[in-house]
This record gives sequence, structure tokens and C-alpha cells, in this order.
Amino acid sequence: MEVRQNKPFALGIDLGGTKIAVGLCRGEQIEKKIVTPTPANSGPEAVINAMIKAAREAMTGIESSEVAGVGVGAAGQIDPKTGEVIYAPNLYWNHVPLAEKLKAGLSLPVKVVNDVRAATIAEYRYGSGRGLSDFVNIFVGTGIGSGFVLNGKLLDGATNSAGEIGHICLETDGPPCGCGKKGCFEVFSSGRGMERYVMTQLVHGVKSSINDIVEGDPRKVTGKVIGMAAREGDELALATLRRAGMYLGLAIANVHTMLNPQRIALGGGVMALREFIMPSLIEAMEKHILPVALRDNIVVMAACEEDAAVIGSAALFCATHPGR
Amino acid sequence: MEVRQNKPFALGIDLGGTKIAVGLCRGEQIEKKIVTPTPANSGPEAVINAMIKAAREAMTGIESSEVAGVGVGAAGQIDPKTGEVIYAPNLYWNHVPLAEKLKAGLSLPVKVVNDVRAATIAEYRYGSGRGLSDFVNIFVGTGIGSGFVLNGKLLDGATNSAGEIGHICLETDGPPCGCGKKGCFEVFSSGRGMERYVMTQLVHGVKSSINDIVEGDPRKVTGKVIGMAAREGDELALATLRRAGMYLGLAIANVHTMLNPQRIALGGGVMALREFIMPSLIEAMEKHILPVALRDNIVVMAACEEDAAVIGSAALFCATHPGR
Repeated sequence: MEVRQNKPFALGIDLGGTKIAVGLCRGEQIEKKIVTPTPANSGPEAVINAMIKAAREAMTGIESSEVAGVGVGAAGQIDPKTGEVIYAPNLYWNHVPLAEKLKAGLSLPVKVVNDVRAATIAEYRYGSGRGLSDFVNIFVGTGIGSGFVLNGKLLDGATNSAGEIGHICLETDGPPCGCGKKGCFEVFSSGRGMERYVMTQLVHGVKSSINDIVEGDPRKVTGKVIGMAAREGDELALATLRRAGMYLGLAIANVHTMLNPQRIALGGGVMALREFIMPSLIEAMEKHILPVALRDNIVVMAACEEDAAVIGSAALFCATHPGR
Repeated sequence: MEVRQNKPFALGIDLGGTKIAVGLCRGEQIEKKIVTPTPANSGPEAVINAMIKAAREAMTGIESSEVAGVGVGAAGQIDPKTGEVIYAPNLYWNHVPLAEKLKAGLSLPVKVVNDVRAATIAEYRYGSGRGLSDFVNIFVGTGIGSGFVLNGKLLDGATNSAGEIGHICLETDGPPCGCGKKGCFEVFSSGRGMERYVMTQLVHGVKSSINDIVEGDPRKVTGKVIGMAAREGDELALATLRRAGMYLGLAIANVHTMLNPQRIALGGGVMALREFIMPSLIEAMEKHILPVALRDNIVVMAACEEDAAVIGSAALFCATHPGR
């Protein structure tokens, strides 16, 4: 066991724009889990209070002396030294001293990381990256993020922005991205990117059963709707998912050509539609990877699923986690 | 000093398709250098004999007990464990047990690495990457290769093919590459890629002073010729170099977005034409890097220049080199 014997537990908190998930973890086991909505519209204090309340609930019946610390995986840009959330667009946060506030409220050590890095730690320690030295975890959700474990260590980068794979440029004159640039990976393959693509097609009069599902209102298009339509064999939905897979395959090929990792794991909500995504992903990957470097099982599905950020942020309090 | 006191020297050998350079090194200092042509057409035995002869000459007057070992940087695919050259197209080599043969001939320990990795070790230890933990070295020559030092260690990759950055795909429907794929980085920005582009333009009747320099024979186009024409203000040459710079900037931006290294160094013969390449490189880099991640001095010129592979392969016999 890597946790200190007198402190067998650690709390892991997944702080998202819609929900807060707190897990009382013992290694990769979640002993108790509390999920509560994120009161994002009520400001940072309300969110932090909700986190503290849920954390206390998760620790009911446990001595706080048995808890090594509180790890938080937050969707945003984090200062890893201070635990400040520098910028978190889906929480409307700017420069919130999250670690400091949680520490004051819970009287426990607190560490904060980006949620995708937390999930990467979980995958690396307990999931599809276990035992590997070079491992890439790509999270395909509303946006696209990633974590790189290279030479056995999670990569932070010079300014702590390693892993922003969603914004590599795959088409120099591609469609505009929310970041202000053009042709970013996530324009093609993220949930939001697919929704926008479908909306544009509908507005331009492309026939699709999606139109019926959203009752003629393109603004109601979601990833779920695209999945429903794909299952009904709708051509626009299928083409959108093929396109997402094609660019996923291209991005994976380029990562592989550069870094030759042992494995690349795919997670996130969009991968629930993998039956429609994988064929074009594999085809594109095989098209773009150097033939000599092509191997079986380069790409796998992430193993830790929705609890990855909880387990991974709790693992920040294991002595041997790959980020330190 | 990192070398053992009783063995102050190491030999570094840069094995290229046209020349063999052997340096008797003391750290980053080359005490003596022997350069001899590579008898590539005479087969592996002849080349290895030429290497042994040059190595002995470089060690004249030195006790072999003062030499820690012989490092070789070879342009090709290397088995780092056995020192076998698996494949080296410009030497016409397939499965040549180079380390074994040199060891037999010189009675010294031998290590073989890919030449770009050797140059990266030199840059990291003594040049533009000194003191950094995350450093990328891109070599822009006839082809394009790279070395990644991440988390303080040179990246080999799962099948020892990390760093093949010349074959990331930058245009899915771009021109064909020698590797069999389309739109690879080196199609646009390598010396060979630029030569082919110019040849094609000339064959299609584009007016250019290059035509006069090569006396109407497009097969005579070289990087040197393109540079001469660019200095005369020739529009085709200038456009070719701008194009190379644009794709260099795009590739650098994507590497940076993914890995956020502290520094990216550019070396290789093509960078001798940097006055014509850098403006479009910087423009493309600024266009494609996430604004929040943009910093000064991300890109620098490699410092070790033509001796990088000699110094870096000798450094394989320093206890603290980043590859071990």
C-alpha cells in the first residue's frame, strides 16, 4: 500500500460546472461517494461551501486524523503550487484561492490539479496506463483535454499548460474554435464541436431526423441527440461521428509519431458513442501513422470512467503518484 | 566533472551518409577531430573499417585506458540495447551489428544512438537546452527529425521511434511523402521537400532565376541553390522558404500546445537560411499557439551546430546524460 498506514483514506473531489463529486478513497476504492449540484451561478463562496459540506458528509464516521488530505480535480487552469484556480470558464471563476479556502474549512492538506490531469493520474495508477512509463490519456467530452505521462512522470509543462491537445491545429483553414483560432482538434471531435457542426448543417437545410428530435430548433442539438439519431441510422449523425473519429485518428497518429507512447487511452462522454466513432478513427490512424511504428492496442478505452477525477485527485496524497 | 577522473576522454562519432566525423571529446570540448568520407557504396565492412581507422587516429598519443568509451550517432533506426543499426537508408544498411564490430575493432565499450538523439543530448547538456527539464530539439536538414527531453530524460518511446516529427501529418490531402503517406511535415519544410517543391514548380513553367542557376535542369535544384536564388530576391525561392517557415511554425505550435516545453531549438542545414524562414515561422506560430501559452523565446537556434552529434554521442559515456 502506498498510503501511510495511519492515514488510510484520502478525499478526492471532482469539481465540474454542473456537479461536485466527493469520494472517500482508499487507494482506487471509493468507500463513500457524495454527489451534489454545483451552485456555479451563486459564486465561488457558495461552490466552496457546497464542497466543504459534501466533504464532511463523505467523512462521517471517520476520524480526520485518518485522512491524508483532500485532492481536487477542477475543470480549469490551476496554479499547482498554490492551488489557486486561475481561470475556470464553466464555473465563471477568476483567481479563486481554492486550496486555501478548503484548507481553512476542512483543516486538512489540500492539493488542486486540472481535472483531466487528475483523471490521467487515476488511469496511470489504476487503469489503462498502469505499469507503463509513456502513456497518453485523451478526454473527449464537451471539449478535449489530455494528460501526458512521459518517462514515468505526469508532464506539467513550462507554464503548466501541457496537455491542451484540444487546441492543436488539424486544419489550417478549418472552422473557428472558441479559443479564437481555426481548425483546432476540438472543433471536429468534441461534443461541442459536433453539436455546432450539426446545427450548421441543419441551418443550411440538410435533411436529418435530428430535426424531428429537436422539434426544428437547432439550438437543442446535444451529443445525446446526435447519438439517438445515429442509432436510428440518420446519415447526418453518422457522418458527424465519422468526421469526429477521423480527426481523432489523425490527432492520435500525430501524437504517436512524435512521442511513440506505449498506450493512448480515450475517455470522456463522447466515447460512449464509440461504436460510431472507432471505425473511422482506426482507419485514419492507420492512414497517418508511420507503418513501421504501427502496433496493436496502441489505442484503448480509459478504464476508470466517470470516477477517474475523484480517484486521481485522491491519489495526489499517495507518495508515489506520478505528478511529484 | 561528470566523466570518471581516470578516463577523461570519450570518442564521439557522427556517422552520416557522406562523411564520418570522429571527435576525441573531454566533456563538450573536442580535443581532436578527424573527418573522412563515408565509403557507403563499398558496404558496411568498409564503413566500419573507416570508422575504426579514424577513431584510432583521433586517439593518437592517448592511452586507451583514458577513454571511457565510443559513442556513435548514426542516421537511422537503432536498437539502443544491442547497438545494432536496424535500418539506415542513406548508408544502404539493414541489420548491421555496429556496436559489436566497433567493440571488436577498438576494444572499448560502444553505444549507438540515432544521430538526432545524439545532437539532442549535446543541446540538452551543453547547448540551448542546458538546465531545462522539458526541451525539444528539431533538426531540419534533408529530412526532419527531433529529440524530446521530457521530465529531464530523453524520450525513446515504446518501440524506440519517439521523435519522428518529420512525419506528423500537417495537411491530410497534402503532397506525397517518401514514407508513403501524405502531407507530412517534412514534405513542406525539409531540404528535400523544398527541392521537390521547386522542381515541380519549374516543371510547371513557373519563372524563376533558379532555372538559370541550374541551367534548365530541375534535377540540379538543391537547398544551396534555393538559398542563392533567395538572396537574389527570386520570388519562387522566397515563396518556398516562406512555405517551409509556415509549416515549421504550425508544427512548433502543435508541439507547444501539447507539451508546453520550456524551449524548442532548431538546428540543421536548412536553418542556415533562417533569415528567409523565420518571419513566416514566427507568424504561423503566433497564429496557432494558444494566446495564453505564448511566451518570448520559445524557439531558439540550436547552439552546438555541426558538432552536435559528435559531442552528444561522446556524452553517452557521461554518467549523468539524460538518456539513462
